[in-house]
Amino acid sequence: MQHLISLEDMDRDRLLTLLDRAQQFAELDARAAQPDSLAGVHVVNLFFEPSTRTRLSFEIAAHRLGADVVNFDAERSSTLKGETLADTFRTVEAMGAQLFIVRHGDSGACELLSELAGSGTHIVNAGEGRNAHPTQGLLDMLTIRQFSALPFEQLSVAIIGDIRHSRVARSDLHALRALGCRDIRVCAPDALLPDAGELHGYRVIDVTDDALRNADVVMTLRLQRERMEDGLVDSLEGYYAGYGIDQRRLSLAKPDAFVMHPGPMNRGVEIESAVADGPRSAILRQVANGVAVRMAVMEALVEHCN
Amino acid sequence: MQHLISLEDMDRDRLLTLLDRAQQFAELDARAAQPDSLAGVHVVNLFFEPSTRTRLSFEIAAHRLGADVVNFDAERSSTLKGETLADTFRTVEAMGAQLFIVRHGDSGACELLSELAGSGTHIVNAGEGRNAHPTQGLLDMLTIRQFSALPFEQLSVAIIGDIRHSRVARSDLHALRALGCRDIRVCAPDALLPDAGELHGYRVIDVTDDALRNADVVMTLRLQRERMEDGLVDSLEGYYAGYGIDQRRLSLAKPDAFVMHPGPMNRGVEIESAVADGPRSAILRQVANGVAVRMAVMEALVEHCN
Amino acid sequence: MQHLISLEDMDRDRLLTLLDRAQQFAELDARAAQPDSLAGVHVVNLFFEPSTRTRLSFEIAAHRLGADVVNFDAERSSTLKGETLADTFRTVEAMGAQLFIVRHGDSGACELLSELAGSGTHIVNAGEGRNAHPTQGLLDMLTIRQFSALPFEQLSVAIIGDIRHSRVARSDLHALRALGCRDIRVCAPDALLPDAGELHGYRVIDVTDDALRNADVVMTLRLQRERMEDGLVDSLEGYYAGYGIDQRRLSLAKPDAFVMHPGPMNRGVEIESAVADGPRSAILRQVANGVAVRMAVMEALVEHCN
Repeated sequence: MQHLISLEDMDRDRLLTLLDRAQQFAELDARAAQPDSLAGVHVVNLFFEPSTRTRLSFEIAAHRLGADVVNFDAERSSTLKGETLADTFRTVEAMGAQLFIVRHGDSGACELLSELAGSGTHIVNAGEGRNAHPTQGLLDMLTIRQFSALPFEQLSVAIIGDIRHSRVARSDLHALRALGCRDIRVCAPDALLPDAGELHGYRVIDVTDDALRNADVVMTLRLQRERMEDGLVDSLEGYYAGYGIDQRRLSLAKPDAFVMHPGPMNRGVEIESAVADGPRSAILRQVANGVAVRMAVMEALVEHCN
Repeated sequence: MQHLISLEDMDRDRLLTLLDRAQQFAELDARAAQPDSLAGVHVVNLFFEPSTRTRLSFEIAAHRLGADVVNFDAERSSTLKGETLADTFRTVEAMGAQLFIVRHGDSGACELLSELAGSGTHIVNAGEGRNAHPTQGLLDMLTIRQFSALPFEQLSVAIIGDIRHSRVARSDLHALRALGCRDIRVCAPDALLPDAGELHGYRVIDVTDDALRNADVVMTLRLQRERMEDGLVDSLEGYYAGYGIDQRRLSLAKPDAFVMHPGPMNRGVEIESAVADGPRSAILRQVANGVAVRMAVMEALVEHCN
Repeated sequence: MQHLISLEDMDRDRLLTLLDRAQQFAELDARAAQPDSLAGVHVVNLFFEPSTRTRLSFEIAAHRLGADVVNFDAERSSTLKGETLADTFRTVEAMGAQLFIVRHGDSGACELLSELAGSGTHIVNAGEGRNAHPTQGLLDMLTIRQFSALPFEQLSVAIIGDIRHSRVARSDLHALRALGCRDIRVCAPDALLPDAGELHGYRVIDVTDDALRNADVVMTLRLQRERMEDGLVDSLEGYYAGYGIDQRRLSLAKPDAFVMHPGPMNRGVEIESAVADGPRSAILRQVANGVAVRMAVMEALVEHCN
């Protein structure tokens, strides 16, 4: 594995290997001795969309493995002076950077860069268009494995919210299917559902209450404010009434069900504060697992070419 | 001591312990071997107000103790997307960051975060509202101790300028009183004095010349340009005439008196260049002491929970 | 050598010493053990003009030598609050930073800072006004030495483009002359040539084809878009027709001639993509050499005072 662009074609064995290694990192105290798998490696955060939380998570993960990290502030860089994405990438690669953490608004940007990359250079997709956010998918799987007593094959997973525009949902769907999950329910306003035939392996359920009934895992997605401006959602209040995860709705799921959210949360829009901060919230564990998963991914990529 | 939020309740012994340790760091060459008290610790600069100089000082201090440092650019972060301060904090904490250097425009922000923090997480107030800037207070005390032959109990300290809006002045007042200083004189235009009863332990003196007479220490404060816009100060020239520290005024103080300023300076507004750059200026020593004090503080907080 | 401000007065021996050391770094794998020549040194990127690529190159070079790096974001700093350049510099110096990488729009800024600097502080000019960009000059010389079989004394070098406003061209001219190069040809629209008598040691050639004929090295320069806005260039198309380096023009140079560009490139303006990406392009090697040269420079400056 030279790059991590998507979970779409990742097989079950590779997924499990990454999750097992991430679990070790999740259990390793940050102040204990760490493997220096990335010693001498320069990691570059090449972010064309701002995302402080994802950048920090990668940065902390890279530091823990002994890497040096530099931040490429794409909003201020020569891309402003008309340099192409390819030239920007080749330039930083020529400086000796080996691991590129790429965030970009356009689907396909990471694929493009991976085609340009030399054999010792690695691309990690840190969120791209509406296409894929594979480390988020992995950290969600790690979280499910930690919280659930059941194997993926027996889980019922409800995904509530803007699946249409969500790279998180796409990566989650790919990973859940690869891990054998057979009951994936999706619920959202029509305008926020994917086009027919675009995605596979899930059932659309019209009513949120029905989607949650006896679910083991409840994943809710962030509602971008742009959806309002674009007229896809009438009002935040109406969205919350129809799709917000509150305590009443959560009580329809299994007694040991838990709630996930990729963050940042809109409290009172897609999730009730009592749920977000409650005993069945896995949200902060997701964040912690993000560091562990990114350590596992970066280590696997760099070891690939040693 | 898990957090450093204010000097208001810090007792004399703890203050002196921190100053003693800071003095050791001040004498330790930066290229010599340093204690790795923060090895494996992630320090996060969580700055909601820009302050390059304070951020750099903490960053250099943290590096010298072996920490990894990440910068959270609050102006570009998810706080823009409507995430609450509490969620932002909890998220970065969940990533494994242990030491939060917090700068915020609102008084109370650090207190709020300290209530959310887990037992292994530390908050350092790096300037908050008009409330407190405790590491500035500590570095000022360290500087006074280095420059003055007298103990705090026998010092006459004149603080000239915008005490009303100054978190620096508040932290200095707390520390000076805890260290036993009995002669603290304050001088400013009426609109820049604190409300009656808000602060204690100082005398208001109307005329700058009188405030400086036989003083051992002259602290002058930055005049924010907003004070002009808000009509609290008529003109910069008038302010300088009334409250600027120039060579003539300084000659009224004791022969070995010295001048301090928290920076950045408005030359020709609150201080004359000949004074700022003269032999009785302690201003650059304050900056150097800032690194030493921050090393001592961060070390003390992290060792607290080991 | 305490500072690196310009190549104007650097003699041949010192230039060759730096290039020899840089060559060693260019051949040293980034993941192999590196000399820790900058251990305990704080390097500050003090950039008053944005330049992500130059900053990254210095940052990677500094990390490889074991330095800690902090970024001073001059656009957001106290310079905005009216602090002078001198005060900003003295403040960061007082924090213990030893190596200042300075980028500034005004010619003379680095000279000014070098006069303020203490004996253990070093200034590296990372691009200043239209005056000098000495590490770019050095990396260009290293690249020429790697690509060319001939000694500098026998080389024909054609510099095409906006020499008038180019600090890169000035540093290249200084270095080429110090290394003995006798055939330096310059070609540009009249408005982009330097004033008569300002620079020395080159011949102006009116027609690009003539300038390239039998050249060993073709250096093309970036055309800033401002030149259009200022009316110095009529159109990008016209500029490309007259001065763009394309395959036909390159065929006029010697068969083993190669093309250099300081980046970022305007493809289709000063250079054809087929040339930029072709087998005779040295452009990415220049970028790689930038890291090696900056390692050599920083090491030499810091060792100077040990």
